[in-house]
Amino acid sequence: MLRQVVERGPRSRATIAQDTGLNKSTVSSLVSELMEFGLLVERGAEHRGTAGRPGLVVDVARDGVIALGLEVNVDYLGVQATDLAGGSRYKAMEAVDNRGRGVDEVFEALGALTQGALNEVQAQGLRPIGATVALPGLVDIRRGALLVAPNLHWTDVPVVELLREHIDSTTLPISADNEANLAALAELWEGAATEYSDFVYVSGEIGVGGGIILGGELFRGYRGFGGEFGHTTVEVDGRPCACGSRGCLETRAGLEPLLAAAGLSAEAVTTRGAGKPVAELRRRAEDGDTAALAALTECGRWLGVALGTVVNMLSPQAIILGGYFAPTAEWLAPVIASELSARVLGGNGAVPPVIASRLGAEAAMRGAAATQLRHVLADPTLVAI
Amino acid sequence: MLRQVVERGPRSRATIAQDTGLNKSTVSSLVSELMEFGLLVERGAEHRGTAGRPGLVVDVARDGVIALGLEVNVDYLGVQATDLAGGSRYKAMEAVDNRGRGVDEVFEALGALTQGALNEVQAQGLRPIGATVALPGLVDIRRGALLVAPNLHWTDVPVVELLREHIDSTTLPISADNEANLAALAELWEGAATEYSDFVYVSGEIGVGGGIILGGELFRGYRGFGGEFGHTTVEVDGRPCACGSRGCLETRAGLEPLLAAAGLSAEAVTTRGAGKPVAELRRRAEDGDTAALAALTECGRWLGVALGTVVNMLSPQAIILGGYFAPTAEWLAPVIASELSARVLGGNGAVPPVIASRLGAEAAMRGAAATQLRHVLADPTLVAI
Repeated sequence: MLRQVVERGPRSRATIAQDTGLNKSTVSSLVSELMEFGLLVERGAEHRGTAGRPGLVVDVARDGVIALGLEVNVDYLGVQATDLAGGSRYKAMEAVDNRGRGVDEVFEALGALTQGALNEVQAQGLRPIGATVALPGLVDIRRGALLVAPNLHWTDVPVVELLREHIDSTTLPISADNEANLAALAELWEGAATEYSDFVYVSGEIGVGGGIILGGELFRGYRGFGGEFGHTTVEVDGRPCACGSRGCLETRAGLEPLLAAAGLSAEAVTTRGAGKPVAELRRRAEDGDTAALAALTECGRWLGVALGTVVNMLSPQAIILGGYFAPTAEWLAPVIASELSARVLGGNGAVPPVIASRLGAEAAMRGAAATQLRHVLADPTLVAI
Repeated sequence: MLRQVVERGPRSRATIAQDTGLNKSTVSSLVSELMEFGLLVERGAEHRGTAGRPGLVVDVARDGVIALGLEVNVDYLGVQATDLAGGSRYKAMEAVDNRGRGVDEVFEALGALTQGALNEVQAQGLRPIGATVALPGLVDIRRGALLVAPNLHWTDVPVVELLREHIDSTTLPISADNEANLAALAELWEGAATEYSDFVYVSGEIGVGGGIILGGELFRGYRGFGGEFGHTTVEVDGRPCACGSRGCLETRAGLEPLLAAAGLSAEAVTTRGAGKPVAELRRRAEDGDTAALAALTECGRWLGVALGTVVNMLSPQAIILGGYFAPTAEWLAPVIASELSARVLGGNGAVPPVIASRLGAEAAMRGAAATQLRHVLADPTLVAI
């Protein structure tokens, strides 16, 4: 019932009774309970096409609960608070090259960002119900630990435990997951892929991440480490990759090789924040700068090679480009499409559309917060005090 | 109930009643019906640990129904008849390079093989309940048509329709599927993967095929063309592939480049039948022949590169090697394992075991026949006359 109000908008108790098949007194009693939990509110009048006394409607409590989506990435930290209606209630990002910092220093900074967000939302009268941390590497979701993050050179970091040490709350539920997995879920739930059930999400950051959605669910694989498109081998004896292998896609399509090929200094990446060098690259490409255009074409070609393999393997409905691949999609997507039509077995019927994310740099954090909120939609008693 | 007898062996009506929770008269009535359908028979005595009068047992009717598994591959045609107990009741293979023949000629030959099998099993008193054709390319399973078979240079072949023109029966159910998909199912049901629920199967023939099993089911992908590992790009500007692309795995790990690298003539492939040049290669490798060993190492390396990408994407429980990769697995598997440990993100916990098929060249045909038999297990009334 709560999910229905969240997904289809404010409605009267009578409408809910009609749509759910529950009787009116059951609906009234459930609504009262969800109002007590701070998940629903009563307000205004329901718009009706017909005449008659307008009834009260129940709506999602925008000023009830929120969840935090946190992110530790290679070159930034971030936090985002989302309410049950999907509204963003607080956000903060810190552009910083975490490769130059120790784990403790990073988690102290993430803890400060998190505590700042908690303080701010509580001052707004909102109630935090959980936090999920998006991470640029393989995650043991059961233990809430980062197993390996190649670009950070971190292994076995007990993320949930470390974060808890740096915030006041001892009871806030905290979980962790791979950033591209969470971003893929955000695309499914509220992004470019709401009409797709089976797609692959590939995102460009310092590393290249991926997420696979099959049948409307995140696919992790039996061992839990699926979707790592960034480590598709595109050159058997290629450039060394941070993961220890050679010739991985991210040695060609990660942000740094792209900027280097475009003649943008590597320093621009680390000193100006994740968004800015990409904005500069876009500007140059729009101005017809030869180096920028050639770099984007080259990057698109490598992406197309790797995605051709992905499509031959998974035969997906669509491909979603995230991270910096989204703002550069107008240059990358046609090159990718051309590689796909050359490399995918089965011709046009087998080649999926290539679509840019519209969630921007917040995709993973939005997916992280939504993961927590969806726990509440599935079981509202989780927020019973 | 039928599935229970097939999977767990002969048992008394009383045992069946106990295990299924059905009452004895229901079991007796079901058993009678399945005996009428020719699916169960009554025989012998059930072995009991305790004293007492031994009861009659019901068992799968080995002399009841059979299904045909047919295969059109690049360098052979084959047929295999399997009974409900999994026994092989007839088989025939014809080693012939189908690249030198037209579609009509091939289907005339396949029709003759099929009719020969039908005549033979009917002479044995067996009743054919369906046939599935395994094909070396993308299959539209709904239409029973081969969409594209790169190595045969065939497109849009109405396989089921063509086969029917060349056999006497107008009612035998016929379906078609990709050969590696069917072989992967055979591995799951009765081969090297019966203990796995999530694995990738990769097979070496003239082409390199693949099948993906997720959660105990064949994964086809949204567009239906998943599992095409053979067209994983391993060299971006590599050798031209029959599919029209370049640098696909099968340009390096297909049977012909392997034999060429080992110094075995290409003619050996086409004139001596699929099994023989591989037997010769094995013999040379066992004798320590340098060219044979180097060719196998090189082949294993390319397979390992492609499978590294597969594992990073799907995080499977195991990898099964089929086709000619099975009899050469003692040389290929260690090289593959070494590439995987270099290329798979997440270290040893992420690297799956690499296991050789034991079904030999019949894997796809066994899977094809079993697919038909499983329809009957799911719905025994399909064989009601």
